[in-house]
Amino acid sequence: MTINAAQIKALAAQIKKGSRLALSRAITLIESTTAADRTAAGQLLQSLLPHTGGSIRLGLTGAPGCGKSTLIDQLGLNLITLGKRVAVLAIDPSSTKSGGSILADKTRMGRLSALESAFIRPSPSSGKLGGDARNTHETLLLCEAAGFDVVIVETVGIGQSEAVIADIVDFVAILIQPGTGDELQGLKRGVLEIANMIVVTKSDGEGLIAAARTAGDYAGTLHIMTAPGSPWDPPVQQVSAIENQGLDEMWVQIERHQNLLNEKGMLEEIRRDQAARRLRVLVEEEVLARFHRDEKNSAKLQKLERMVRSGELTPGVAADDALK
Amino acid sequence: MTINAAQIKALAAQIKKGSRLALSRAITLIESTTAADRTAAGQLLQSLLPHTGGSIRLGLTGAPGCGKSTLIDQLGLNLITLGKRVAVLAIDPSSTKSGGSILADKTRMGRLSALESAFIRPSPSSGKLGGDARNTHETLLLCEAAGFDVVIVETVGIGQSEAVIADIVDFVAILIQPGTGDELQGLKRGVLEIANMIVVTKSDGEGLIAAARTAGDYAGTLHIMTAPGSPWDPPVQQVSAIENQGLDEMWVQIERHQNLLNEKGMLEEIRRDQAARRLRVLVEEEVLARFHRDEKNSAKLQKLERMVRSGELTPGVAADDALK
Repeated sequence: MTINAAQIKALAAQIKKGSRLALSRAITLIESTTAADRTAAGQLLQSLLPHTGGSIRLGLTGAPGCGKSTLIDQLGLNLITLGKRVAVLAIDPSSTKSGGSILADKTRMGRLSALESAFIRPSPSSGKLGGDARNTHETLLLCEAAGFDVVIVETVGIGQSEAVIADIVDFVAILIQPGTGDELQGLKRGVLEIANMIVVTKSDGEGLIAAARTAGDYAGTLHIMTAPGSPWDPPVQQVSAIENQGLDEMWVQIERHQNLLNEKGMLEEIRRDQAARRLRVLVEEEVLARFHRDEKNSAKLQKLERMVRSGELTPGVAADDALK
Repeated sequence: MTINAAQIKALAAQIKKGSRLALSRAITLIESTTAADRTAAGQLLQSLLPHTGGSIRLGLTGAPGCGKSTLIDQLGLNLITLGKRVAVLAIDPSSTKSGGSILADKTRMGRLSALESAFIRPSPSSGKLGGDARNTHETLLLCEAAGFDVVIVETVGIGQSEAVIADIVDFVAILIQPGTGDELQGLKRGVLEIANMIVVTKSDGEGLIAAARTAGDYAGTLHIMTAPGSPWDPPVQQVSAIENQGLDEMWVQIERHQNLLNEKGMLEEIRRDQAARRLRVLVEEEVLARFHRDEKNSAKLQKLERMVRSGELTPGVAADDALK
């Protein structure tokens, strides 16, 4: 696809009117890796940036099988009933390897995807600087320009996606499936640190007792992990998506958090800091990638690593040598 | 100081005999930033590396005032009574800025420093690739070549020192001062993740009740944070250094952990992985430092960061521009 300046302008205008077709076309442009498309995508984003920032950016992360899709489906329906337009995006670190997607089809959120006020976008393809997470971030901005009130970014809490999500959204909810002590331990280290809320899913039927125990365990842990004097003490919320229990309370907390940030003038500041940090991360990732892509560097480093592993060199002396 | 090949050989021989004077001279050489000294230091380390690895490498981290020095003083005495030689080193991330040291003098560990079997080295000066942490790591290797049985690396649990310490030692003990819930929260995020043990200090006199409560809180938290099937479940140990209570139990646990790693053949593997990771970290830190030291890059990045903060550019588009 090639696109000229007039077409970019027209596309931007249609997006601002809320056109889903225009939104989809723009996302395709953003995900393209050809030089011409990337220039065009940059221009489109630049013209739309003044119209972004109006949504609540909600990050949801949790292990496969924890009930993420069911929760998003019901939460989305509730929000649409409140008159809101809802977009659902995904960061899927594994898709860059497998080519697959955690949102393989829209049947995962069957009821939500059928609604005009909802927009569900599968995990983007990658292949350029910043890859998948970058596409998701820019798609989020497009959705805001298109007038969506809530943008949900979902990710499986593995790899580094949770560090990225914390730099993209306003609020991170970690979904935990109730279980025994042993199953609890499977939570990836580092994930709790970015939580603005813990959601214990499947709090219904025979799972109720286990869910209450899980909620209690995490309440204590979160309390220890919260910085003193912090304006926000992350709550633990029990939820049953199939019974639509606890989701309203979950949303009330999210709005309370957003209002708190807005009142204190912190939201804009946080988002500016996030954007600056994203820039730095993207640049540094690419600087390192270029260093390692250089075959001479790469071969030298591999040789030195072998010498370090075999005990011939200290890491410090080897590093001096690698950078000579 | 300039030093020739024969002198390096003599120095290495003296270190292997356990000479404290030679050890001190070698550390000074390692900390030097002149090119000739660094080459000499590299040669010295290379010749001594086959004689390293024989110590238990113990990392102790905790906030200022948590009782670190008092604990090390008493633990060191206990170990020397068991016939061991003990070295105490420090990584002090703040010293690179202030020029100061957390080990300002040896009076902090008054009794230990008076003993012939103890070697206490203040926080090193920095100023070269890898800085402070690198000097500490290489000093640790020298201490092993000099026959020390236990090398204690202490650091205040702030900044990034805890990530570094996890790549240098075999066992990390986090020292926690008993306190109320609010005080507990001051623990830096990320610190718990590297803990092989939590030590609740000052478990004596009027502090006993608070210490028991603190120990209970952390036991639950550690349980949640431990990976399922992990061969080591980090214990919580209450200790009173002034009453010499709990320190023997602490040491028994550390030896049990070391034996566990040795039995499974994991110790050497872990140390090799640590060394390889240190090499990668040192190289990548310097690659990024060079990128940022380049005035053109730095000025461009600052300008782009302003544009990202003001909402003129997305981080992705700005990153493309920065790296053009």
